[in-house]
Amino acid sequence: MVPVRPENAYQARLLRMLRDDGPRSRVELGDAVGLSRSRLIAEVDRLVELGLVETAGPAASRGGRRSSLLRVAGTVRFAGVVIGTDRLTVAVTDGELNVLAELREPADVRSGPGPVVARAGELVGKLRAELGLAQLTGVGVGLPGPVAFREGTPIAPGALPGWHGFPVRDTLGAELGCPTLVDNDANVMALGEQHAGIGRTFDDFLYVKLGTAIGCGLVLRGAPHRGATSGAGDIAHLRLADEGPGCACGEAGCLEAYCGEAGLIGAALDAARSGRSPALADRLATAGTLTMADVAGAAAGGDPAVQAVVRDAARRLGQVLVGLVSFVNPGIVIIGGAPDGLGHTLLAEIRAVVYRRSAPLATGTMPIVLSDLGERAGVVGAARLISEQVFAAE
Amino acid sequence: MVPVRPENAYQARLLRMLRDDGPRSRVELGDAVGLSRSRLIAEVDRLVELGLVETAGPAASRGGRRSSLLRVAGTVRFAGVVIGTDRLTVAVTDGELNVLAELREPADVRSGPGPVVARAGELVGKLRAELGLAQLTGVGVGLPGPVAFREGTPIAPGALPGWHGFPVRDTLGAELGCPTLVDNDANVMALGEQHAGIGRTFDDFLYVKLGTAIGCGLVLRGAPHRGATSGAGDIAHLRLADEGPGCACGEAGCLEAYCGEAGLIGAALDAARSGRSPALADRLATAGTLTMADVAGAAAGGDPAVQAVVRDAARRLGQVLVGLVSFVNPGIVIIGGAPDGLGHTLLAEIRAVVYRRSAPLATGTMPIVLSDLGERAGVVGAARLISEQVFAAE
Repeated sequence: MVPVRPENAYQARLLRMLRDDGPRSRVELGDAVGLSRSRLIAEVDRLVELGLVETAGPAASRGGRRSSLLRVAGTVRFAGVVIGTDRLTVAVTDGELNVLAELREPADVRSGPGPVVARAGELVGKLRAELGLAQLTGVGVGLPGPVAFREGTPIAPGALPGWHGFPVRDTLGAELGCPTLVDNDANVMALGEQHAGIGRTFDDFLYVKLGTAIGCGLVLRGAPHRGATSGAGDIAHLRLADEGPGCACGEAGCLEAYCGEAGLIGAALDAARSGRSPALADRLATAGTLTMADVAGAAAGGDPAVQAVVRDAARRLGQVLVGLVSFVNPGIVIIGGAPDGLGHTLLAEIRAVVYRRSAPLATGTMPIVLSDLGERAGVVGAARLISEQVFAAE
Repeated sequence: MVPVRPENAYQARLLRMLRDDGPRSRVELGDAVGLSRSRLIAEVDRLVELGLVETAGPAASRGGRRSSLLRVAGTVRFAGVVIGTDRLTVAVTDGELNVLAELREPADVRSGPGPVVARAGELVGKLRAELGLAQLTGVGVGLPGPVAFREGTPIAPGALPGWHGFPVRDTLGAELGCPTLVDNDANVMALGEQHAGIGRTFDDFLYVKLGTAIGCGLVLRGAPHRGATSGAGDIAHLRLADEGPGCACGEAGCLEAYCGEAGLIGAALDAARSGRSPALADRLATAGTLTMADVAGAAAGGDPAVQAVVRDAARRLGQVLVGLVSFVNPGIVIIGGAPDGLGHTLLAEIRAVVYRRSAPLATGTMPIVLSDLGERAGVVGAARLISEQVFAAE
């Protein structure tokens, strides 16, 4: 089935406005888009004919005749898929990108792209059946690593061994029979923040994604910035020290080797083994290993050695951010994916470094905050990713 | 006099196309802009009526009736002003931003903004008289330091003591009686590269400006990126080392303290005084001081100690670029303002660091080149800056 698309830039703009701002009257839409009343009515009528827009009930009166509200049609349904290193999250949204249903389950990306992408397709199918949808309008996918955006394939993703070059977009698109786009997960989460988080009110912002794999999504001048070869934001393997902890990429001293989960756990293991953290040493002796929850628990409980580990990681991330913030001068920096219980410790140290070391013009009024969307940023952003393509004139 | 502006986005696009690509026939313009023939003719006729476009002679025949070429009107004349730390450069261009006349003279920015800005106005007036122009269409200005773009004022510019908050835009605009915009010089030079240099064929590029003050201009997705508070590209005072050479800003270890002219001369003085460079020690004994030309001459002449100084500076710039390039993934990096004779030594070392240390997705095919426009990038870019405003729909 060929998807219906707006026919011109005005229709596309009207649709995106209804997606972002919710139901609006014709008068409000006309004011915002700057179209004459007759032209606006013609474009809206065409969007209704195309099945992209529908009437939503009467609008509040401005005096004169009662007008009705318009909204994105109820047949517009997007799916958002986020492939994580250890789990799969899938949601279906309406045309305003509200999540209607969501599924999450463990997944092991090391089993290779074939089974994981097939499973993602099954989960989307399950939600589609549950919601009684004959057809999805489009599917967006985020995955943890660099993505060749035009090709829809991962590029040498450290966190996804065996996924290089796998046609994620084309495989899932063929399976689900609708327009599909794939992007790096940090880019997708940045789009989620732009739609439903604090990013909504900023034209320029950075979304830093912590967790197993570190990434950064850039929204610049109101749109995702992917760069010349869709590698923008690929900061995980910036080298902070020539002699540093080993990284999953095979090098040493990368940002991710300090601030990724494996890096934090590795530094906590050192603290346990050296006796600097007696509590973690006990835990290690009992359990045979340490988890991120152990590290976060010890830090939250006031263990000074573990707090030092967390602060050191945050300081290194802060030093990288100093350069990035001076360079692109964002309106806000949003930190997402911080391990439970560690967010505020990380944030305090990142702020201290960035505000102390950056050019005043770049950071004088720039907030650094934790994401308040949490995991939902990913699926909403993935839905927004594909909605941007489907809600654009051909 | 109120300047004439295009009336809608189509007229603006047609004008910018004629500015960038030179004379075109109606057919070529219609093909490029995607307007119907009747609408195109109406918009072009209106641009001719407004005095912004004129007929330029017959076009090559495509068969059928001979059509005539259109071009930006001969009454459209921009001025570009570049305020350097030690000189003033002023040019007047036609509507395609070809330089028609240029003046350059020494200037001392430490004499304060009043006299320098007044002198810039005089030089523009001189060129205007020389070319017999009643009126300029607009003036663009670049200056070495952060600029609050919306206000048209320098912000705490290290290289321009006493210039903070001086209304450069409004003073010069009132003096010359035409639309005026002021921006950071690296941004302006990036615009020059976009118009007339290798930047022309790239949507995303960085222009790194070496010299007395270091700066970086970003063109992202085809447009200058200034950031939330117009501080983007402000990399001069990124701290590379806690214990480093002193910087003009009062801190130590800044990028500029290593790679700016004062930094290079300082390191060369060390090499002279320590006896590592006997040639520069002689020169210092004779002249009492060292200049950038001395340093460049010694490096070009094969003095190993001075070459080491230059390579060290380049390596540090390269390390900063690794982060910036990973972060925004430009299509090309252009290095401008390299001291005469040092460009290729700097470039070789910068390339070595960036290609060795960056993520392959970001730099696999990314060239790093020296600017081939030289000083002209500044005045052409300043003219382009104001042309972007004047050639936009109101």
